[in-house]
Amino acid sequence: MTAPDPSPHRLGRRHLLRAGSLGAGALGVGAASVGLDRSLRRRGAETGPAGDGPAPHAAAVIPFHGPHQAGIETPAPAAATFLGLDLREEVDREGVLRLLRLLTDDAARLTRGQSALADTEPEMAAEPAALTVTVGFGPGLMERAERAVPDWLAPLPPFGIDQLEERFTGGDLLLQVAAEDPLTVSHAARMLLKDARAFTRVRWVQPGFRRSPGTQAPGTTMRNLFGQLDGSANPRPGSDHFAKVVWIDEGPFTGGTSMVLRRIRMDLDGWDEADRSAREQSTGTRMDSGAPLTGGTEFSPPDFTQVSANGFPVIGEFSHVRRARGVDEGEHQEIFRRPYNYDEAPPPGSTALSEAGQIFVSFQADVLGQFVPIQQRLDALDLLNQWTTPIGSAVFAIPPGCAEGEHLGQSVLE
Amino acid sequence: MTAPDPSPHRLGRRHLLRAGSLGAGALGVGAASVGLDRSLRRRGAETGPAGDGPAPHAAAVIPFHGPHQAGIETPAPAAATFLGLDLREEVDREGVLRLLRLLTDDAARLTRGQSALADTEPEMAAEPAALTVTVGFGPGLMERAERAVPDWLAPLPPFGIDQLEERFTGGDLLLQVAAEDPLTVSHAARMLLKDARAFTRVRWVQPGFRRSPGTQAPGTTMRNLFGQLDGSANPRPGSDHFAKVVWIDEGPFTGGTSMVLRRIRMDLDGWDEADRSAREQSTGTRMDSGAPLTGGTEFSPPDFTQVSANGFPVIGEFSHVRRARGVDEGEHQEIFRRPYNYDEAPPPGSTALSEAGQIFVSFQADVLGQFVPIQQRLDALDLLNQWTTPIGSAVFAIPPGCAEGEHLGQSVLE
Repeated sequence: MTAPDPSPHRLGRRHLLRAGSLGAGALGVGAASVGLDRSLRRRGAETGPAGDGPAPHAAAVIPFHGPHQAGIETPAPAAATFLGLDLREEVDREGVLRLLRLLTDDAARLTRGQSALADTEPEMAAEPAALTVTVGFGPGLMERAERAVPDWLAPLPPFGIDQLEERFTGGDLLLQVAAEDPLTVSHAARMLLKDARAFTRVRWVQPGFRRSPGTQAPGTTMRNLFGQLDGSANPRPGSDHFAKVVWIDEGPFTGGTSMVLRRIRMDLDGWDEADRSAREQSTGTRMDSGAPLTGGTEFSPPDFTQVSANGFPVIGEFSHVRRARGVDEGEHQEIFRRPYNYDEAPPPGSTALSEAGQIFVSFQADVLGQFVPIQQRLDALDLLNQWTTPIGSAVFAIPPGCAEGEHLGQSVLE
Repeated sequence: MTAPDPSPHRLGRRHLLRAGSLGAGALGVGAASVGLDRSLRRRGAETGPAGDGPAPHAAAVIPFHGPHQAGIETPAPAAATFLGLDLREEVDREGVLRLLRLLTDDAARLTRGQSALADTEPEMAAEPAALTVTVGFGPGLMERAERAVPDWLAPLPPFGIDQLEERFTGGDLLLQVAAEDPLTVSHAARMLLKDARAFTRVRWVQPGFRRSPGTQAPGTTMRNLFGQLDGSANPRPGSDHFAKVVWIDEGPFTGGTSMVLRRIRMDLDGWDEADRSAREQSTGTRMDSGAPLTGGTEFSPPDFTQVSANGFPVIGEFSHVRRARGVDEGEHQEIFRRPYNYDEAPPPGSTALSEAGQIFVSFQADVLGQFVPIQQRLDALDLLNQWTTPIGSAVFAIPPGCAEGEHLGQSVLE
């Protein structure tokens, strides 16, 4: 299950999409069974052929080819680096296609533990550790490839809370490089950048982390740097509901999705000064269990009608959970979040104890219909805004996956 | 084995040291059996009481109390942050002692999964993930505590290859915070900094990574970002030889050691341009196996007398392995290396693909007699210097461990 499939698949994209939507084709099922439960994959690796060795995560392989790109529905591994690249001025449509063929070849090799073509360090590629490489297109790439830019593929509308910095914003091309091991991520990102170098300039690099393998219990939600359970409302990977929330089902990006990537600085020093009650009021949930203040478990629906003895709503109107979920009928939108944390050295001269936050990553079929209304509500009124500041922002179109012999974006740019 | 020991130990430091040196006392054995094999600890956790849960690494505990501080002989976990702090001007001897009592209390709690005193996020402390907190003293702290500064506790002599930056150099107090999970490290570092804030200013913060749990096979050596097996010559933790190389056996720091911490930038872009043969000549070892070019395995001694058909030494005179090991009789010194990698965003405006390198960390009983001669030989002639540049440097005195009821540094500063 976790070993690279040695048989070459020569299926076309349409076949893949069909297989994927039926949940049946060999590739679709393979990707799903490997991808949908990090713990299962791990357990599988430990007891299966790949697990006879003593470093089970090192050998884990997430199939690169399939109807959807890996790195979205597949479990979020421990380490990721997000690379925002700009095309060099002289790169034209042919150049874009050459670049994508190169990156696709690199990604297919690296994710199955083979070295990239120009790689002089095959040992560093030998342990893919569930490596995924996910590619996204900014509006600049679509233009350069002489194809229509979808109306939603544009900077987000400005929000009042934004303090965006150019160095974390925008980009023509996105590479999300993620694996269970940061050394694998580091090497894969270098190899991809090396091959992309003739075509692109690095606009930004954002390394992030989640829990190490074996430290997050399967099926549980990760805490963010504020200590909040973060992602409780996510649609469940592998479900029909997930597919509906995430995958685009018409037009050139069918089988793909959109990614919103926002760098959100978290004021941990300020958060430390808030007591537990203030924190719980700001989110509308309990710090310990993540349950709504109206009771139940992390996954219980909040009861926005419940009032306390003195007549106030138990979950405040301006709490994060209420604003995120929507207040009025018909306001309930969903996105799939797959964030990473960052915690870096404070800038020189700063008296802050940390420069930390979240690389917020969400996938949704419809940026304008799903992400934007949620963010507009949070922007207008969300107590959590006191401690969070978006300092970077980008939207990318994620093309569908590809079959062997194809390159990423082929169907979109053909 | 990996669960916190609930019984309070009220043993004095001398007892601990005696127990440690005999390898017998309850604490000494406990620390050794937990500490010396990351894979055993992991396996123990998976099959033992702490391992019934599905996140075995989360519950792993490395005992804080003992004859030596944890975080040296104990296995190097996946994530670490190194904090260099300067004492505020107004902090006197009493202030230093108060600070150390506070940090000792925090460290003892956090490493066993309890929250620090001022911590409003007990959930974040609940999973120690093999957390260790190791404290070191710079010369400034000894002076402030009105105690003699050992002659070796000073900046290293300048080396020709150095391009030291103030922002990564020196410091009065060192905290090495390490765990199998970066979220644990992030939280613990914050809690310690919060309590240290009234006494210290942050001088530098250096986060680093090693392989994730389950990606490095037990007993094997980690590759660094150059792809080199790095640490093959290390003395084996738990051995008498290790004790001889690392622990100070006389004077106030008995049971302690010295730490050299150097930030070494690695020119990965330049390294990429070197072919495999040039790389192997520069180190004197094979890239794949780490074996000396004269044959054998990673652990075989290099044969410096072997010459090739045309009469040249197989391992060049200027190769890293030859310079590191010493050329003439009596030149062989040893240190224990416990490095971490860093790979961060290139500085704004840079055309480099990465800002990466190694947080070189070594422990040795005698800085001047062990570390300095090795570094002097490497400084004078080492082909690897082409691609490496030390940009930060600090030396710290690591006091011995302490028993419950004592604080770190108590014996040194009493």
